[in-house]
Amino acid sequence: MSRAPPPPVPDPTKIFQPGLFKGKVVFATGGGSGIVMEMVKAMMQLGADAIIVSRSKEKIETSAAELSRETGQKCIGLSADVRSPPQLKEAVEKGVKALGKINFVICGAAGNFLAPISGLSENAFKTVLDIDTLGTYNTVKATMEELKATHGAYIHVSATLHYRGLIYQAHASAAKAAVDALSQVIAVELGPFGVRSNIVAPGAILGTVGMNKLSQKKDGEDQMGEAMLGRWGQKSDISCMACYLFSDAGAWITGHKFVVDGGEVHTPPQMASASFPYPQAVLDPASVADLIKARL
Amino acid sequence: MSRAPPPPVPDPTKIFQPGLFKGKVVFATGGGSGIVMEMVKAMMQLGADAIIVSRSKEKIETSAAELSRETGQKCIGLSADVRSPPQLKEAVEKGVKALGKINFVICGAAGNFLAPISGLSENAFKTVLDIDTLGTYNTVKATMEELKATHGAYIHVSATLHYRGLIYQAHASAAKAAVDALSQVIAVELGPFGVRSNIVAPGAILGTVGMNKLSQKKDGEDQMGEAMLGRWGQKSDISCMACYLFSDAGAWITGHKFVVDGGEVHTPPQMASASFPYPQAVLDPASVADLIKARL
Amino acid sequence: MSRAPPPPVPDPTKIFQPGLFKGKVVFATGGGSGIVMEMVKAMMQLGADAIIVSRSKEKIETSAAELSRETGQKCIGLSADVRSPPQLKEAVEKGVKALGKINFVICGAAGNFLAPISGLSENAFKTVLDIDTLGTYNTVKATMEELKATHGAYIHVSATLHYRGLIYQAHASAAKAAVDALSQVIAVELGPFGVRSNIVAPGAILGTVGMNKLSQKKDGEDQMGEAMLGRWGQKSDISCMACYLFSDAGAWITGHKFVVDGGEVHTPPQMASASFPYPQAVLDPASVADLIKARL
Amino acid sequence: MSRAPPPPVPDPTKIFQPGLFKGKVVFATGGGSGIVMEMVKAMMQLGADAIIVSRSKEKIETSAAELSRETGQKCIGLSADVRSPPQLKEAVEKGVKALGKINFVICGAAGNFLAPISGLSENAFKTVLDIDTLGTYNTVKATMEELKATHGAYIHVSATLHYRGLIYQAHASAAKAAVDALSQVIAVELGPFGVRSNIVAPGAILGTVGMNKLSQKKDGEDQMGEAMLGRWGQKSDISCMACYLFSDAGAWITGHKFVVDGGEVHTPPQMASASFPYPQAVLDPASVADLIKARL
Repeated sequence: MSRAPPPPVPDPTKIFQPGLFKGKVVFATGGGSGIVMEMVKAMMQLGADAIIVSRSKEKIETSAAELSRETGQKCIGLSADVRSPPQLKEAVEKGVKALGKINFVICGAAGNFLAPISGLSENAFKTVLDIDTLGTYNTVKATMEELKATHGAYIHVSATLHYRGLIYQAHASAAKAAVDALSQVIAVELGPFGVRSNIVAPGAILGTVGMNKLSQKKDGEDQMGEAMLGRWGQKSDISCMACYLFSDAGAWITGHKFVVDGGEVHTPPQMASASFPYPQAVLDPASVADLIKARL
Repeated sequence: MSRAPPPPVPDPTKIFQPGLFKGKVVFATGGGSGIVMEMVKAMMQLGADAIIVSRSKEKIETSAAELSRETGQKCIGLSADVRSPPQLKEAVEKGVKALGKINFVICGAAGNFLAPISGLSENAFKTVLDIDTLGTYNTVKATMEELKATHGAYIHVSATLHYRGLIYQAHASAAKAAVDALSQVIAVELGPFGVRSNIVAPGAILGTVGMNKLSQKKDGEDQMGEAMLGRWGQKSDISCMACYLFSDAGAWITGHKFVVDGGEVHTPPQMASASFPYPQAVLDPASVADLIKARL
Repeated sequence: MSRAPPPPVPDPTKIFQPGLFKGKVVFATGGGSGIVMEMVKAMMQLGADAIIVSRSKEKIETSAAELSRETGQKCIGLSADVRSPPQLKEAVEKGVKALGKINFVICGAAGNFLAPISGLSENAFKTVLDIDTLGTYNTVKATMEELKATHGAYIHVSATLHYRGLIYQAHASAAKAAVDALSQVIAVELGPFGVRSNIVAPGAILGTVGMNKLSQKKDGEDQMGEAMLGRWGQKSDISCMACYLFSDAGAWITGHKFVVDGGEVHTPPQMASASFPYPQAVLDPASVADLIKARL
Repeated sequence: MSRAPPPPVPDPTKIFQPGLFKGKVVFATGGGSGIVMEMVKAMMQLGADAIIVSRSKEKIETSAAELSRETGQKCIGLSADVRSPPQLKEAVEKGVKALGKINFVICGAAGNFLAPISGLSENAFKTVLDIDTLGTYNTVKATMEELKATHGAYIHVSATLHYRGLIYQAHASAAKAAVDALSQVIAVELGPFGVRSNIVAPGAILGTVGMNKLSQKKDGEDQMGEAMLGRWGQKSDISCMACYLFSDAGAWITGHKFVVDGGEVHTPPQMASASFPYPQAVLDPASVADLIKARL
């Protein structure tokens, strides 16, 4: 029997009620690009206003203007490094002053690259933990009183790569596993204050930095055919999950992980194994040198 | 600081687009009552027609009539024992003859009661596995060709009780863990045919047989106050998740578990521990005899 | 850098104190062959006497004689079908009459074969659950009073195949996941009586029926080279873990899983993926027909 | 039926062959006290020499002298802060110069205290991640070439507290989850070089700083009675597991977690819930102020 055509790409404006997030404000780190920007956009299409934060002032303001233009909602772009508690606190203050409150927080700032432990300096490892894990904690500290006031919710953008050992991902695996664990404690400590915390774990999503990197050596079309469901992920596969968890439909959901990966964790990682034959890739990292970050 | 008021109870007709499931047909075992009936109702409110299956002909026809009346959609009630492959196949044939196809299947038939291993006969253990686990497999075998034809999806109603060892639940823990594992294989084997399979794992839901049993000794209101988020689950917390996973929003989601439990698995199970002090409850099951199934 | 030589194969008599199990009696289902027989042998080499149980009277008596001859300890071989509670109870009675008591129980009887869901009848699925899951429960029911008397322990031989979805293993995945969950409840319910329960989960072990089947198409040596640590498992890798968990070293260990798999669950399943290219193997099971059980 | 007496406390010299680690050298961070010192001692009793590392030069030299005196093996105490890669590298150099090589590494340095997120500064959170997670990575980087040379193994001392959300443990939960994930990648990347990596996860162990803190308000004896198996953990419950995993019995074991907790993760954490009634403890941390770290 021949395989099925790929599944449809979801459109949040066709799934959810119009105005689902009317009168609500979302605050997002890493919100100026990629998956997180798409999450914010979907929520704005459903009525939310937004505060997005990233390191580059110019880029984040451009992204904010784009989001406003496309959705007709307010969006403020603020520059802050998630590794700096004072910068984050200032961004929260500015955002709340402008939009009045924060209902939802997306902790999405992250850094990643491919590197074997043998070539990954202590400092490079630390940098990823600082951005992903401490960045998440800093964001939670800067926003938790706002969420207590609105009985709001957190979504942390994690990954599936640490569900088992994956070569070249020591740093991101440690950092994301830490975020997953942190989210559980947030759920338990802030639950009685009416604040929820969940993990969204995307698989391989097209149009992200990671996927572009991984697929640069290969013929994209062929690899698409290897995906279990016949296509790789689209950003809207993930943004819909954020909309769900932040809506009243998720009102009794906290402390859990929501994997959106096309079933990829269950299958041999085809694309990865084609790029990184095991154990050759760890015995001789030089053989895949073009995929590994130049300066570690 | 005082605790927050309980979160809102979601209403699927306020979350999702009207007509989300127009032209679709859902087939549900255990669909005549409880959580599964509520799942079917939510889908019908969003436009689906339904085939519901349960053992008692009279009850299932009454439930089907009620669902049609309340939603204005077609609903067929058919009697079949999920332990009988021929009965299930006949129900599928009748249902497809009447409604033309099956897009979604909810494997929801289940049996449970409280019993210590010391008082649980081999036959009682087997009965629960037969209904929950074999019943799920039989339902999958009876419907998989229909789902291949429509590129449809399965949801299996599981539980969280087997995430760690829970007294008096040897039978249900084994049966639900088996269903979780089965769903993963279904996802991998049927994914290339365009069929998805996921688990929905409800926590303690009000108005179900299990919760009524557990709360019969105690003052319900006080126990509600112990829930992490300030209320226990409502059936619509679960039915919304089913709507999400079956919609295009879930088109790239397969092979995973979706826990909707108010964060309960992270906290000491207050109600359970109040009813079943440990280790006393296992040292002397007679001390909680009124909660244990009479004949095992 | 070239890869390391394979690790040593452990010998329990070189790891543990001589006489570690002197005066103890182990009862094992599925004890007449394979991994379980090796577990029993290791314990006998360390001083235990044994009761081994299997379906075929002739085979089990031959195995018992072999174990006695090789270790100098007493071993009784009894025929019983783990699906029959009365047969198991009779075996326990006979064994206790002959050797005085039971300190340790290995639930090892299991059945497996490769089959896609599309070709696996409801009855074939049920048979595996009956042997693996009900067989384990029946064995626990038949022996638990003996273990309460000696403050003994259970080891259930499980697997890793259900840690994620694996094609052609719907039946075994469900059955072993159920055993894992059951073990946790046994731990909690029997812990206060001084009885422990743990899971040993072997990876791909040489010399077992499963491995012989999987490697029949391929050049064994080449595939060995793909194992992460440079060799596949040996039966003594597993039998040592059993000795550890049953010894006083494991006295405070209960309710957990102990995976001995050479790290295999973390890596692309090389041998499996070579034999079963995905998704071709599920789209066209006939292409790997020689690996699939003939009659399902 | 009355409950069983507590299980025996294991003695590694009664479980394992004398001289099991003769000619081997273990390197341990956090090796000057607590569980890690006991692990080193057990290995020395079985023939190993040791290099132990901690921050205080005086303390670590005293501990080293004590270990040598008690076991008759060589032990070198070196001061180094695991947060400093150069200090660790110097310690490794000195140790290898003195004892010739390193076969085994225990990553045991850790910091912990109880604190709610509301009272835990960004800097306090970071400090725990720096010690536990970066400290582990730094240790791996400093020792991995030594272990490649000897085909050695890592054990990382983790915990069970992050298996679900636990109040007051945001920092340690994140840090230990990261270590668990890191260990998996080490296993996969260093496996082909003959180096193994595993996690040992202790439950509540008597005589450790954590347990002393938790039990200071309460009558110790009564709380002991609540443990599932009738006693809390002893350091030798953990040190035996280390001996097992480092011996040839563990030669085919890598990439996994080994929980030694008396089954505690499966039961309501009695002692914790008595000390920290939920949700009161998170709504009003001041009510348990004496258990929370003074300055965060």
